[in-house]
Amino acid sequence: MIRRLCIIGVGLIGGSLARALREAGYVEEIVGSSRREEHLQEALDLGVIDRFDSDPARAVEGADMVFVAVPLGAMGKVFESIAGKLATGAVVTDGGSAKASVVRDVCTAVGDTPDWFVPGHPIAGTEQSGVAASFAGLYQGRRVILTPLEQTRPEATARVRAMWEAAGATVNEMSVEHHDEVLAATSHLPHMLAFALVESLARLSEQREIFEYAAGGFTDFTRIASSDPVMWRDICIANRDALLKMLERFNTDLETLHTAIDSRDEETLLRIFTEAKVARDAFSRPAEKSKD
Amino acid sequence: MIRRLCIIGVGLIGGSLARALREAGYVEEIVGSSRREEHLQEALDLGVIDRFDSDPARAVEGADMVFVAVPLGAMGKVFESIAGKLATGAVVTDGGSAKASVVRDVCTAVGDTPDWFVPGHPIAGTEQSGVAASFAGLYQGRRVILTPLEQTRPEATARVRAMWEAAGATVNEMSVEHHDEVLAATSHLPHMLAFALVESLARLSEQREIFEYAAGGFTDFTRIASSDPVMWRDICIANRDALLKMLERFNTDLETLHTAIDSRDEETLLRIFTEAKVARDAFSRPAEKSKD
Repeated sequence: MIRRLCIIGVGLIGGSLARALREAGYVEEIVGSSRREEHLQEALDLGVIDRFDSDPARAVEGADMVFVAVPLGAMGKVFESIAGKLATGAVVTDGGSAKASVVRDVCTAVGDTPDWFVPGHPIAGTEQSGVAASFAGLYQGRRVILTPLEQTRPEATARVRAMWEAAGATVNEMSVEHHDEVLAATSHLPHMLAFALVESLARLSEQREIFEYAAGGFTDFTRIASSDPVMWRDICIANRDALLKMLERFNTDLETLHTAIDSRDEETLLRIFTEAKVARDAFSRPAEKSKD
Repeated sequence: MIRRLCIIGVGLIGGSLARALREAGYVEEIVGSSRREEHLQEALDLGVIDRFDSDPARAVEGADMVFVAVPLGAMGKVFESIAGKLATGAVVTDGGSAKASVVRDVCTAVGDTPDWFVPGHPIAGTEQSGVAASFAGLYQGRRVILTPLEQTRPEATARVRAMWEAAGATVNEMSVEHHDEVLAATSHLPHMLAFALVESLARLSEQREIFEYAAGGFTDFTRIASSDPVMWRDICIANRDALLKMLERFNTDLETLHTAIDSRDEETLLRIFTEAKVARDAFSRPAEKSKD
């Protein structure tokens, strides 16, 4: 149970956590903070938060739990503002899609590795953003990854885990490095391919006509290219090393496919497509069920 | 109105056309043909066809319309079998995803460019295949591209157009070369990326775990990697030149993105992602509506 929850960055991710915990009766009071006061007013009007303060240093006062859900590029500034202002025993966690960069930002802001910070990442979201798109069921049946550090108090990790479970999520723990590799593979690389493909086609002269003949597969394939450009710029910078590694791996595999097409190597083509289909079919069985 | 329609290859594409035309009351009799008799028996049991003959040369006898919906790699053999067996005035069309290769196969089989052949391509389908997955509404609101040749009788093109319109589709005409470029961009390249990505991830040692953390975006992005491997091997061979051109174009754009990430070039990243989002959002407005 959380007495006072402070959410810094009340958008889709922060707003949905607020709604879920409120619905679960897991929180008494929710204080919002954000750089833009009109977003906070909107969140207040929607009943997502109880009050707000655009200064994060004041917003965290007396909070026993703080959730930082700002773009990765804004994490450092937030932690500089709140370090030293936290209540005794307060626990802080975040929702960033890359974890090594957030840990670096926190340690720089605090001047040390704090025992009250639990790096976290809810694997959920849509192409939408903003508090108006938030909903209580966003985390239902979804996974949240926590990457506690050696210095993190086990009790802090336990409290963050309990919070996410109250919001309906399944919580897993892994190392910061492993998180960043897994996400580069399953999320960051696919987003790069979708952005690059749509950009590539958009610059063809016949653009309008080309998109007219796109079928359902293309629609699904490129949906993620509608995601927030600022957020993805930040993810590329924050998870640069793991993403570059995955991109290079993918390039090698695409090159193999390119060579097989070029040399009309039917056997290799059939092998690649069959292996992919088998893996995708095996994956889709549990995953499609949990699709919202 | 078609008196006797012969469908060679009664799978998702052929079966759905049969169902649609039957529902529209546009056809009197449907004869099926296929290499595998159990598929024909299934189609007969489902009421998709009225009778069948596994020999295409006999199946086309007396048909005024023939639809060839076999994999691209099997087109040549079919046209060799039916050339010379067609009824006077019969029109033949196909459903292949690449057009230059089919035209080449037909001309080789016939020994000349026939005036009765209308190359066609319905832009519809799912990851499913087989007659059991066929349904009358597959072509409703979808596009069909016809690529008539200089030698094609205008009356033949008009009859194929009328057939597809009776099945609920919108028909467009363009050149063979332009069709193959447009499809390489909107369908063949995206399938290559999805296959290559899933294959790339499937070979990571942590495969099972990696797929566990995949979210909705990944599910959508990789759905097309479940498509039929044999069909896609044939498409790669048949549309090799246009596909290689698109792959190389995409590679250059992915390289630009790679360099921007590597050099932490925030401005270029934001520009690419914004351009892609704008193009995808503009495209999705009409397209999502027509999704089934």
